[in-house]
Amino acid sequence: MQDRVWTIHLGQHTGERVVLAGWLHRLRRLSGVSFLILRDRTGTAQVVIEDPAILAALDGCQHETVLRIMGDAVQEAQAPGGVEVRNPTIEIVTPVAEPPPLELFRPNLQAQLPTVLDHAAVALRHPRNQAIFRLASAAMAGYRRTLRAAGFTEIQTPKIVASATESGANVFAIDYFGRPAYLAQSPQFYKQMMVGVFERVFEVGPVFRAEPHATARHVNEYVSLDFEMGFIDDHHDVMAMLTCALEGMIAAMREAAPDAVAYLKLALPQVPAVIPEIQFADALDLIWRETGEDARGEPDLAPAHERFLSAWAQREYGSDFLFVVGYPMVKRPFYTHPDPARPAYSNSFDLLFRGLELVTGGQRLHLYADYLAALEARRMTPDSFAGYLEAFRYGMPPHGGCAIGLERWIAQLVGLDNIREATLFPRDLNRLTP
Amino acid sequence: MQDRVWTIHLGQHTGERVVLAGWLHRLRRLSGVSFLILRDRTGTAQVVIEDPAILAALDGCQHETVLRIMGDAVQEAQAPGGVEVRNPTIEIVTPVAEPPPLELFRPNLQAQLPTVLDHAAVALRHPRNQAIFRLASAAMAGYRRTLRAAGFTEIQTPKIVASATESGANVFAIDYFGRPAYLAQSPQFYKQMMVGVFERVFEVGPVFRAEPHATARHVNEYVSLDFEMGFIDDHHDVMAMLTCALEGMIAAMREAAPDAVAYLKLALPQVPAVIPEIQFADALDLIWRETGEDARGEPDLAPAHERFLSAWAQREYGSDFLFVVGYPMVKRPFYTHPDPARPAYSNSFDLLFRGLELVTGGQRLHLYADYLAALEARRMTPDSFAGYLEAFRYGMPPHGGCAIGLERWIAQLVGLDNIREATLFPRDLNRLTP
Repeated sequence: MQDRVWTIHLGQHTGERVVLAGWLHRLRRLSGVSFLILRDRTGTAQVVIEDPAILAALDGCQHETVLRIMGDAVQEAQAPGGVEVRNPTIEIVTPVAEPPPLELFRPNLQAQLPTVLDHAAVALRHPRNQAIFRLASAAMAGYRRTLRAAGFTEIQTPKIVASATESGANVFAIDYFGRPAYLAQSPQFYKQMMVGVFERVFEVGPVFRAEPHATARHVNEYVSLDFEMGFIDDHHDVMAMLTCALEGMIAAMREAAPDAVAYLKLALPQVPAVIPEIQFADALDLIWRETGEDARGEPDLAPAHERFLSAWAQREYGSDFLFVVGYPMVKRPFYTHPDPARPAYSNSFDLLFRGLELVTGGQRLHLYADYLAALEARRMTPDSFAGYLEAFRYGMPPHGGCAIGLERWIAQLVGLDNIREATLFPRDLNRLTP
Repeated sequence: MQDRVWTIHLGQHTGERVVLAGWLHRLRRLSGVSFLILRDRTGTAQVVIEDPAILAALDGCQHETVLRIMGDAVQEAQAPGGVEVRNPTIEIVTPVAEPPPLELFRPNLQAQLPTVLDHAAVALRHPRNQAIFRLASAAMAGYRRTLRAAGFTEIQTPKIVASATESGANVFAIDYFGRPAYLAQSPQFYKQMMVGVFERVFEVGPVFRAEPHATARHVNEYVSLDFEMGFIDDHHDVMAMLTCALEGMIAAMREAAPDAVAYLKLALPQVPAVIPEIQFADALDLIWRETGEDARGEPDLAPAHERFLSAWAQREYGSDFLFVVGYPMVKRPFYTHPDPARPAYSNSFDLLFRGLELVTGGQRLHLYADYLAALEARRMTPDSFAGYLEAFRYGMPPHGGCAIGLERWIAQLVGLDNIREATLFPRDLNRLTP
């Protein structure tokens, strides 16, 4: 069988008889001439049908019928992309008898989000959704490429765990051969243990949070881009590596998914060589001075504060990104390293991107005695963490790391209202299918 | 602080005063001079200590103490690697007060596997284990690189699912906000749905099998390298792509982990341009003729058959790999495409590698009516699969794919007796920690 030509390459084959294959995206029957739009994984092509017999063969073929088309690639200034296919022969590969539940040829799907998600198998074929998930794919590739180049080793750690990572709340329980077990809330413990092995590790994988939230920015299963690195001075080494990873992801989107960037009309952010940072306490002072809202003494930022600070960083530094550093220890997990100069504050950070917290990270404790003390202070028993604590008992360097939520990053980058639009098959309080 | 030099690069710095950092791998105190072996993520370096005061400072420092060492890099023919560090100053970064539970400086860990697995945080630091998991990391990178180059898009699909993928047995049950749910046994349904979107997709992620086996070749959570591709003629297109992926993984091991390949003294397999194949029925005939064992009429191969056939392929073709194609439909899942010429047999394959089944794959059904008939024949209700079936209802091309078990592949490649040795933190019938 003759090789397929991708629709995106059609312009390179003008004057040739080519084979295309894909989905019947749209068919406009006009008097005398009809226009068929064929969609494949690279885009769409216009096929001109003049022969009534060819057109009649398509009677009853609904949108999404799979077709194989042979025809002449012809330059045509008025065709989309400047090229079209004429004198086609059309083979119906897979007939579709019923009209699909969504009209994919429209610039935007004319349906409410729950309906779109219910029909994911069809909805994801929309060029806009294809573009979103191509970006996500490119982001993962760029992330891995950057970290590998910096000497990181990729790991895959278990998602079935014997105890909750950070707190007993918000974990999904499993029946593990009659014993209780849980789904991992993060690879935190494992990536730290692996710093003792490879010094620098990363993981791209699912994490599970049983938070009963029904908001536009939470799902209960998402993809976490984690890394962890040893022999650091403090959290600033992690922030510098994260800055490289962000830059690497954006570069990969530009290189590997330029059509997606163009389709979505994205202004990809500039990542400053050094992302500006502000101390948590200074941030609350700033908010108080500029807005009159006194949140000083609060242990965390509210979403409105994050938006204010991002706007401030944009104004002050022209940056879409802002690090907030030095969060109070009280709201951070037990393995957080304190700021040696101000022990009530931590060597930790959040990264804000265009108004949203995107990444949490920091330096971790590395001394065994510090772990025992931190667990005791929180009335947690070291026994449940024996396998993890062994890493510290037998020599761990100063280290730290962070975790980026992939779907949140893509949603904010594209400017989506709901994180579910950046999740292939979202899982939430009410949704387990498809 | 002065930049670290990796131990593997020490030879490039002879004549310089360098900084190394890592773990105290071994300390041999001799009269007059002592030898300290420092281990970092790239290897080990020998440090010569002659000053009694420096040696005294290491009193009480157990193996795995984290050190920062400054010293002169000196050519020394008798040192491992031809270079050593002299006149050191040594900073104790993280002291270790107790001897570790395993002696990492020995060529092999002198302990039974359960003990090794219990102490994973320490055991994984052994150079042999580092080499094994570096190979796994390189394999993942090579897999992704090959598939991306062939136009595949990476996806991440949910691991929490509403119904079992292939059969009701062998799934782990979850409490999902009070509703029953399950851990995905494979991304099968999702990768097929995504063929309707991107035509070619791959996923690297965890899969979960609640099989109550306690064998050396089963674990209950493992990493599956999946791909699925559309617009194929039949399963041979999948086999050709898989052949490329295997070649890509081996090339990546050679390029990205040459030290691991050397340490493990691996003979990496040659992947034939076309891997030999044998029909399932012919394979049983061959076994009958050559061994006298009559398994004709059996629906599947026994492990001993797989070993026999691999040895035969090695003899006959000089190949470590053998495709067995055309398995009976009766043992294959409902979405399997039959061989049009022999409907009791399938367009499916297994790949044998050095005596072990490593990959299962094949062509899938693509017509909606065929799915309805296949489900009805197995007395399964289409309602439970509505979101999946929608992909076929609205146009799917002929397609197929396969899944490679990462840990099994690495174990067989390295010649490990137990798949747990190729699993960072194995999960089995009896093991949930660390």
